[in-house]
Amino acid sequence: MILSDRAINIQASPIRKLMPFANATKKKGIHIYHLNIGQPDIETPKAMMDVYKNYDSKVLAYGPSQGLEIYRSNLVNYYKKHDIKLESDDIIVTTAGSEAIVFALLTACNAGDEVIVPEPFYTNYNGFATITGVKIIPLTTYAEEGFKLPENEKITKLINSKTKAIMLCNPSNPTGAVYPLSEMERIAKIAKENDLFVISDEVYREFVYDGLSHTSIMDLEGMEDLAIMVDSISKRYSACGARIGCLISRNKELINSAIKFAQARLCPPTIDQLAANAAIDIEEDYFNGIIKEYDARRNLVYEELQKIDDIICIKPKGAFYIIAKLPIDDAEHFAKWMLEEFSYNGETVMFAPAQGFYATPNLGKNEIRLAYILNLNDLAKAMKIFREGLDEYIKLK
Amino acid sequence: MILSDRAINIQASPIRKLMPFANATKKKGIHIYHLNIGQPDIETPKAMMDVYKNYDSKVLAYGPSQGLEIYRSNLVNYYKKHDIKLESDDIIVTTAGSEAIVFALLTACNAGDEVIVPEPFYTNYNGFATITGVKIIPLTTYAEEGFKLPENEKITKLINSKTKAIMLCNPSNPTGAVYPLSEMERIAKIAKENDLFVISDEVYREFVYDGLSHTSIMDLEGMEDLAIMVDSISKRYSACGARIGCLISRNKELINSAIKFAQARLCPPTIDQLAANAAIDIEEDYFNGIIKEYDARRNLVYEELQKIDDIICIKPKGAFYIIAKLPIDDAEHFAKWMLEEFSYNGETVMFAPAQGFYATPNLGKNEIRLAYILNLNDLAKAMKIFREGLDEYIKLK
Repeated sequence: MILSDRAINIQASPIRKLMPFANATKKKGIHIYHLNIGQPDIETPKAMMDVYKNYDSKVLAYGPSQGLEIYRSNLVNYYKKHDIKLESDDIIVTTAGSEAIVFALLTACNAGDEVIVPEPFYTNYNGFATITGVKIIPLTTYAEEGFKLPENEKITKLINSKTKAIMLCNPSNPTGAVYPLSEMERIAKIAKENDLFVISDEVYREFVYDGLSHTSIMDLEGMEDLAIMVDSISKRYSACGARIGCLISRNKELINSAIKFAQARLCPPTIDQLAANAAIDIEEDYFNGIIKEYDARRNLVYEELQKIDDIICIKPKGAFYIIAKLPIDDAEHFAKWMLEEFSYNGETVMFAPAQGFYATPNLGKNEIRLAYILNLNDLAKAMKIFREGLDEYIKLK
Repeated sequence: MILSDRAINIQASPIRKLMPFANATKKKGIHIYHLNIGQPDIETPKAMMDVYKNYDSKVLAYGPSQGLEIYRSNLVNYYKKHDIKLESDDIIVTTAGSEAIVFALLTACNAGDEVIVPEPFYTNYNGFATITGVKIIPLTTYAEEGFKLPENEKITKLINSKTKAIMLCNPSNPTGAVYPLSEMERIAKIAKENDLFVISDEVYREFVYDGLSHTSIMDLEGMEDLAIMVDSISKRYSACGARIGCLISRNKELINSAIKFAQARLCPPTIDQLAANAAIDIEEDYFNGIIKEYDARRNLVYEELQKIDDIICIKPKGAFYIIAKLPIDDAEHFAKWMLEEFSYNGETVMFAPAQGFYATPNLGKNEIRLAYILNLNDLAKAMKIFREGLDEYIKLK
C-alpha cells in the first residue's frame, strides 16, 4: 500500500533533521553547544513545578474541551496586564501553540486555500499547512533590511480569491523582528480591505528589547472578527514540555467552530494546565530578570557575529533567535561539517540552516538561525568555537 | 469573513453537546449520574501519581518528537506481555489516542480518500475525518446481532479506488463488541486482497470479559505493512487527563512519515509520558481487580436493561459501554427530557443518544449508549432511576 501524497511530501523538520549527525558526534565524545533549537535553559518557575508535586486528585480525569475554566479565567487576568481585554469564552486552551495554529488554519481555511506568511517563517508552519491542506504563500523579507515587512503593494499582489488569511509571528521566530504598532495597523488595514483573517503567533510577547513594546493583533480596532491569536507558555515560562497553549478570538462563530475541533481530541493535558495556571500569578520581576538575561545574550551573539567579515546581520529586536547571512554557499553543508569534521578542544556548535525557514526555493541557502538559549558563559564559548569553525571552513573551500 | 466549510460542517460531540442541559439541571440542585462519558471513576495508579510528585528536573523541557526513548523501550515490554512483538522504533508516542488516529489517517489517506468503519463507531472519528479531509464509509452493524461484523460481501462492495483503509475499534466503543481471531483474520484477508491499511483502535485491550482473549491487528500474519495500531493509556490506567497514547506500525516508511507529522507539533507532554512509563511496571493483579469490577458493572447494567419491555440489547463482551435499543422514537429527546423534566428523589441520569455514533442518516435514533463507569452502588441507583424515567417517558408519549 502506498502512503498518502501528504505523508510522502511533508517536510522533515530542518531543525531536527540534523539530530542523527549530532548523536554520532556525541558518541565520539565531542560536546555540542546546542544553538539549533528554541529550548531555553532558564529554570521553569517553582510555582509551576509545585503544582505537579502537590496534585492530589485520586483520578487524573478529562478536563473540558475548551480548557479548565479556572485557567481560562486566569488567562483573562494575564492578558489584562498586557492591555488585551478578553472574556474567558474568547479562549480555547490547546495542546501547545502547535495545536492552536492547526485549529486556526482549520477554521479559517478549506483545503486548497491560501495563507500569506512573511518568510523566513517558523518552519513547522509547513507541517501545519500539510496537515490542514492549506497552501502557504511566502512574502519574502530580507536579512539586509532586518526582515521588515514589505510595502503594501508586494503584499496585496499575493491576494486572490483563495487567500483566507495573513499569518505572522510577532516577535518573529526565526528572524527576531518585532512589528511595531504602525506595521501591525498596516497589516490590519490590508486584512480589513480584503476580508482576510490575521493569525498572529505571539508566543514571544514578553521577549522584546531596546525598550520596545509589543503590539498584539487583539489590540487593533475593527479587527474583532478577523483577529486570531495563537499563544503558548512554552517559551514564556520555559515550560516547553508542558504542551499548553491557547487559541484566542473575539469572533464567536470562529471560537464555537474551533471548540468542535477541540471536542474531537477531548481535552489538553489536565495537570499541565494547572501548572500553567499557577504561572499567571508570577510577579513581574520574573520577566524583568529573564528579559535582561536574554538581552545580554543577544548582545553577545550579535557582537560576536559582527566580528565575521562579510556577514549580513541586523540586530534583532525580539524573541531569542538571530539569523545571519554567512560568506559561504551552503549553510546546511557547513552545519553538518561542524558536527562531523570540526571540533575545537573537543567541542563544537550546532545551529539551524535557515533554508528550511523559506518557502521560496533557494532562498536562505547561506543563512543560519542561532537560538541564544544558553547562559552567557556557554554562549561565549559557543560563539568562539563557531567563529573558529567558520574561519576554517572558509579556508577549506 | 466566512469560516471554512469544514469549520461550519464539523460535528459537535453528541456526547458533550448535552452538557449545557446538564449544567442547568445541576443548578436546580438535581444530582446527575453520568453514564454519558467514558471517564472512569477508578483511581489512577499511585505509581503514576508519584511521578508527578517526584519530578525534579529544573527545566520542563521538550522531549523527542517520537516520544521519550525510555518510555518507548518500556512499551515494548508492555506489548510483549500481550504477545505483541515490537521494536521501540515501531512506536510513536502521541498526545492521546486522538492524535494517533489523526496521524494514521494523514499517512494512510489523502483528502478525499475513503475509510470503511463499522458503525456505530466512536463519534470523534467524525471529527478526525473532518480534520484530515477523509470520508468515512459506514459499514452498518446491528443491535439485534450484537453488532457483529457483516459478511464479506457487504464489506467488499464498499471498496473502490478511493478506499485506503478499514478502521475498527476492538473492543468497541460504543458497542462493547469484541472481534475474535477468526473475525480479525477475515478483515485482514480482505485488507490484503484489496491492499488496504487496517487501523485498529485497541485502547480497551484489557477490557474483555467471559474469559475471551483480545486479538491485536499486530498479531496477524502478512499484515506487517498494512497494520496500524492506535493505543492510549486513558482508559487502561484511568488516566484520561494525561493525554498519552501511541501510534504503532511495523511499516517503516509509514512510521518515518508519521514522525514528520509528529515533528511539526514537537512532542507529547513530558511529565505525563514519564507517568505513563511508570504504569507499565504495575503488576498484573491491578487489571484483574479492575476487570472483575467492570464485569460486575456490566452484569448489573445488562440485567437492569433486560427488565425493560421490548428492549433490544445483546450482552456486550468488552470495553465499558453498552448500547440499547429502546421502545421509544427519539433517544435524544428522551435524554434531554431526563435532564430537564424528570428527577427521582432529586436525582437523574445522563447518557449518550446513539444516533451520533452512526454515519448513516436516521440510524440509531432510538438507541442510547451507557458507560458503566460508576461504582456498583451508584450504578444500581442510576439504573433504577433510568428505568423509572423511561417508564414515565413512555407513559407520557
